[in-house]
Amino acid sequence: MGNTFGHLFRVTTWGESHGGAVGVVIDGCPPRISISESDIQFELDRRRPGQSAIVTQRKETDTVKILSGVFEGKTLGTPICMLVMNEDARPEAYRDIAEKFRPSHADYTYFIKYGIRNWQGGGRSSARETIGRVAAGAVAKKILKEKYNVEILAYVQQIYKLKANIDKTKVTMAEVESNPVRCPDQSMAKEMEALIKEIRSKGDSVGGIIECVARNVPAGWGDPVFDKLSADLAKAMLSIPATKGFEYGSGFDCVNYTGTEHNDAFCIKDGKVSTKTNFSGGIQGGISNGELIYFRVAFKPTATVMVEQQTVDIHFRETTLKPSGRHDPCVLPRAVPIVEAMTALVLLDHALRHEAQCK
Amino acid sequence: MGNTFGHLFRVTTWGESHGGAVGVVIDGCPPRISISESDIQFELDRRRPGQSAIVTQRKETDTVKILSGVFEGKTLGTPICMLVMNEDARPEAYRDIAEKFRPSHADYTYFIKYGIRNWQGGGRSSARETIGRVAAGAVAKKILKEKYNVEILAYVQQIYKLKANIDKTKVTMAEVESNPVRCPDQSMAKEMEALIKEIRSKGDSVGGIIECVARNVPAGWGDPVFDKLSADLAKAMLSIPATKGFEYGSGFDCVNYTGTEHNDAFCIKDGKVSTKTNFSGGIQGGISNGELIYFRVAFKPTATVMVEQQTVDIHFRETTLKPSGRHDPCVLPRAVPIVEAMTALVLLDHALRHEAQCK
Amino acid sequence: MGNTFGHLFRVTTWGESHGGAVGVVIDGCPPRISISESDIQFELDRRRPGQSAIVTQRKETDTVKILSGVFEGKTLGTPICMLVMNEDARPEAYRDIAEKFRPSHADYTYFIKYGIRNWQGGGRSSARETIGRVAAGAVAKKILKEKYNVEILAYVQQIYKLKANIDKTKVTMAEVESNPVRCPDQSMAKEMEALIKEIRSKGDSVGGIIECVARNVPAGWGDPVFDKLSADLAKAMLSIPATKGFEYGSGFDCVNYTGTEHNDAFCIKDGKVSTKTNFSGGIQGGISNGELIYFRVAFKPTATVMVEQQTVDIHFRETTLKPSGRHDPCVLPRAVPIVEAMTALVLLDHALRHEAQCK
Amino acid sequence: MGNTFGHLFRVTTWGESHGGAVGVVIDGCPPRISISESDIQFELDRRRPGQSAIVTQRKETDTVKILSGVFEGKTLGTPICMLVMNEDARPEAYRDIAEKFRPSHADYTYFIKYGIRNWQGGGRSSARETIGRVAAGAVAKKILKEKYNVEILAYVQQIYKLKANIDKTKVTMAEVESNPVRCPDQSMAKEMEALIKEIRSKGDSVGGIIECVARNVPAGWGDPVFDKLSADLAKAMLSIPATKGFEYGSGFDCVNYTGTEHNDAFCIKDGKVSTKTNFSGGIQGGISNGELIYFRVAFKPTATVMVEQQTVDIHFRETTLKPSGRHDPCVLPRAVPIVEAMTALVLLDHALRHEAQCK
Repeated sequence: MGNTFGHLFRVTTWGESHGGAVGVVIDGCPPRISISESDIQFELDRRRPGQSAIVTQRKETDTVKILSGVFEGKTLGTPICMLVMNEDARPEAYRDIAEKFRPSHADYTYFIKYGIRNWQGGGRSSARETIGRVAAGAVAKKILKEKYNVEILAYVQQIYKLKANIDKTKVTMAEVESNPVRCPDQSMAKEMEALIKEIRSKGDSVGGIIECVARNVPAGWGDPVFDKLSADLAKAMLSIPATKGFEYGSGFDCVNYTGTEHNDAFCIKDGKVSTKTNFSGGIQGGISNGELIYFRVAFKPTATVMVEQQTVDIHFRETTLKPSGRHDPCVLPRAVPIVEAMTALVLLDHALRHEAQCK
Repeated sequence: MGNTFGHLFRVTTWGESHGGAVGVVIDGCPPRISISESDIQFELDRRRPGQSAIVTQRKETDTVKILSGVFEGKTLGTPICMLVMNEDARPEAYRDIAEKFRPSHADYTYFIKYGIRNWQGGGRSSARETIGRVAAGAVAKKILKEKYNVEILAYVQQIYKLKANIDKTKVTMAEVESNPVRCPDQSMAKEMEALIKEIRSKGDSVGGIIECVARNVPAGWGDPVFDKLSADLAKAMLSIPATKGFEYGSGFDCVNYTGTEHNDAFCIKDGKVSTKTNFSGGIQGGISNGELIYFRVAFKPTATVMVEQQTVDIHFRETTLKPSGRHDPCVLPRAVPIVEAMTALVLLDHALRHEAQCK
Repeated sequence: MGNTFGHLFRVTTWGESHGGAVGVVIDGCPPRISISESDIQFELDRRRPGQSAIVTQRKETDTVKILSGVFEGKTLGTPICMLVMNEDARPEAYRDIAEKFRPSHADYTYFIKYGIRNWQGGGRSSARETIGRVAAGAVAKKILKEKYNVEILAYVQQIYKLKANIDKTKVTMAEVESNPVRCPDQSMAKEMEALIKEIRSKGDSVGGIIECVARNVPAGWGDPVFDKLSADLAKAMLSIPATKGFEYGSGFDCVNYTGTEHNDAFCIKDGKVSTKTNFSGGIQGGISNGELIYFRVAFKPTATVMVEQQTVDIHFRETTLKPSGRHDPCVLPRAVPIVEAMTALVLLDHALRHEAQCK
Repeated sequence: MGNTFGHLFRVTTWGESHGGAVGVVIDGCPPRISISESDIQFELDRRRPGQSAIVTQRKETDTVKILSGVFEGKTLGTPICMLVMNEDARPEAYRDIAEKFRPSHADYTYFIKYGIRNWQGGGRSSARETIGRVAAGAVAKKILKEKYNVEILAYVQQIYKLKANIDKTKVTMAEVESNPVRCPDQSMAKEMEALIKEIRSKGDSVGGIIECVARNVPAGWGDPVFDKLSADLAKAMLSIPATKGFEYGSGFDCVNYTGTEHNDAFCIKDGKVSTKTNFSGGIQGGISNGELIYFRVAFKPTATVMVEQQTVDIHFRETTLKPSGRHDPCVLPRAVPIVEAMTALVLLDHALRHEAQCK
């Protein structure tokens, strides 16, 4: 249970980090949309390990294959199944952790919940699961752009204590993609890169914050009362591995204002209703108001660190553990396309819901 | 759409702030649970306006009536419908806002989405909608306590810039309920109360942070990958009116640690698996690990302020607005039982899901 | 669980036959639809007992009240809660069956499933539950008619061994409503009425067949592969109490044809694609093809008969039972509006689904 | 939309008849169940074309591959993805129907609904889609047998006008599988086989009726009011291609009885509650009562016939069509495992729902 996301654009991911493959099925995709494997591959390549010196070096091409739902380059309206084969099967690399629970990983909780776990890597809790999300998100992004002109852009705003200075209304994808950290503040990006390298050399890890904006979302998307746009975004973000918090608009900082300071006065701008400020983050009462949507997501430092740690084994005895093998000291650059993908899934689902009920 | 929450313990709220009634239907409640109207009323009374000098003075008894699903004091396993009649119908009080969009309320977005709105108060976006949540949450809390010994407790941790000092492992409901602010740090509670009174005298408002703990949740609740316990809690919290952010465990503060500092080492405590620290907030990989679950929710300052503000009317002309009538300068004390209710809905749903799949 | 029907036009019924009330919540209703209590009452009155000499004499006005979701005569797009209070509470009338399982009723299965039952009448399995369906169906019928010009009409085709002769392409609601049996073959209706009176005098009961047609359904409604229009209609019909079978188009009679005889040849009629025959019943591959949709539903003889029957009590001892009180020798006339209501729920849900995915 | 079945044991099928592959994802499978590809292959082989002289001769091995959710022979509790590659890609064989709508197929309705279709065979409406159902059903059957001792058995009861004589309480799988028609009345099976061969020689086709029994289903499965066991079985059956009707227990024949004749008297048999007759088909009020569950499904004659038929092309001009290539004069033998699979999906889903709510 729990492997499906969305009500009308329904995405089901499947697959463990080791074993046959990882993939996704999309049900409810509108027909006659142009989709090719290269559209999907573009986003997967952004997520893929081994792209730069600062990310994990898992050696896989992560080549996507579309198995159904697309015919002569167009979607049929039927389920789209996409998969990526797992090539990097190195069970021996995981023998040493087969009987130990890695701290702050999901090893222990999966074992307790299911009474069994795939000890070859993270199994289902591995970041490889997000391949399916990114593939589905690539489809959703394309539809959002073509049908609604909606653009989604995420970027790294903070790594450890290093905070970037970014104008969220102007930042472009080119700026984000111009450095391996995916931080559009180029000088801060350099500092972040240096920090990550230093952290890597110590076998340690760091977390940070990703901010995401959605532009041109029309007013009216989002369903009160439980399926508020903000609530669905919160769920989407907290479903990404390693996330610890979500805030939109003024977020936690809202506590530092009084109501008169914090309210977004309505006004008429270029002949249409707008707000003078945007503490609301483009969402009021759970429904988009036509302003820029923006939110932030906190990622914890990667749980895998290359130092000896105290832990417990599957026989519930205390022991120690020092992982060998690959090490990803900071997942944020690779998490950027995942944040975008999940945002696209939420927005497109609500776009379709709006068409169904209110048009 | 969007008025149902939960997969197995399914809660559907309905009702506008003015009009017949507000209420809730629970589908999937286990049979043979003792439930009385007084169990529900206890929680509703905690949520009700007019309880103290610092909250809104809406004059309603909010008396709940159970219309179905309970027979001779026991649940039947059939849908439980509960309602509270709206008594405080004062449409004339809203005439002045009938054609104007209140800033940072949902007036504008509902109007744009649906092409119609109930201008008598907040309509569906009113806090009165949460009556249904609290009623359903009262049932869920009872089942969680009786079947699983799970306890849920929320409290005010911060109002505006005033931060309380609270030991989350020891705080009790009696401490929380002993002052009108629902802040268990009694001296800070006094300061908060003074602040709220001062803010009220200015016709202004403030927000703050509610923290919530869940005790005795067994390891194994939560469904990867999208329906992580943390993701469902995030959605539940962000679906509460006026919320802006959610974080669990170390939350946004996680960015200030390295992985070696932040990992929760496993150990054996009292013969069972435990963790030395609890940055994970009791949830790893989206599944409870048996430790204390805790999280924090940010509430913005109330949008209704008693001062003149710039806005736009339904003919899309700029105008000004100064609300008259009731004023709730700080919703946090009344939001405490709502946070608890939503937490109970999430936990019970996952308890039942766990029974279904893994037992 | 199981008390909600529909994916986009979501209907949740609640209520037992005795106790507070029975009702329904509709989530996902389009906004700005004109709905009044009299629209709903019209359909409820068709379903109500005591309308004629041949139906059960339960003395209730079944007056509907709309509690939410409608403002100044228009739907808001928010949940519509409607209820009917239970007036006819005569628990003493059921004392004699409180400890006995009525044969071919749901008494035993509810008791075994839930470990408790409301012995005052059928409880949740009572036909009173269908009040909520008919109320929701009244809303759905109105939307289907106004937005899509779709008309739904059901009628009694057979009672016991008496079969009516009806031209399904021409039958009108006036013809159906012109006699208490709701059989548009007027001479057969008289025979049926006489039969029901005779059966009633014996304390016995009979079943029969209701046929339903849906006119002007555009081609393209229905979702392969599991949510075929035909599959959802089958589920909708078999969810009505006392039903035993469903068939559409040629139905079970299809076995008597070869493929060459049974195929519906496509042709051009009045400039549009049509079929020469309509064995398909207007549905091909689970999707409407623009032809007349028609199907038939079998209803068993009412389980309540006024004669002594062998049974078992709640202590699992053999005993006998002879019900006293009301007796409904044939439910079909009253089931006609229920069949129409469920058909409307299926069709409107698929209309909205089609808007969402394919427009 | 519409490609997922089930609430707790959720099955999503995907794939067209031509193109990459067909398959299924199961979400919600209990962990620690032994499953191997050979368990799945056994059922797929029963469904596969080319097994005997009387079925279509599509030349494919239909070899299943499990891509996720199973580790070292046991289910992990995570999604199980299974697929079968499409080998028999012969687009040229379909060139002649690329622009024509085959009568009583889904060609026209898919084209109208989606504005596009995969003209290489039936696309998504092809019987190949049922491979995913049978694979998922194989898992469900295994769990039902191992955890609940529930057995499901379907067989051909009628082909065209030839009716078999079968004792549903005693029939065994060995009897069903002992002839290519899958009719356990061996002498009638011979006649049916001769009939099918004769029909094939004419290029024509026939339909028939499949009966299915479920043994040892405990009392208490099924969820009132919409998700009755009978309603979900009806939907499951009508979702199978070529089906036209469903009836359970006495079915349509119920109309020929009065209530006193038709009621199933309760009695005590071998110390437990039982019924003297079983017109209820093991289901009362939508919940299993512990008796044998049985129902019947009508299949129309195969729409593909090898004779010239009148039809319309995609430019909406009248034309004629004579298919070439493969011809399956009677799908019923191959539909038997599909009926069993869908029955298993319904029963297991309700078993899990019962665990969740009532245990």
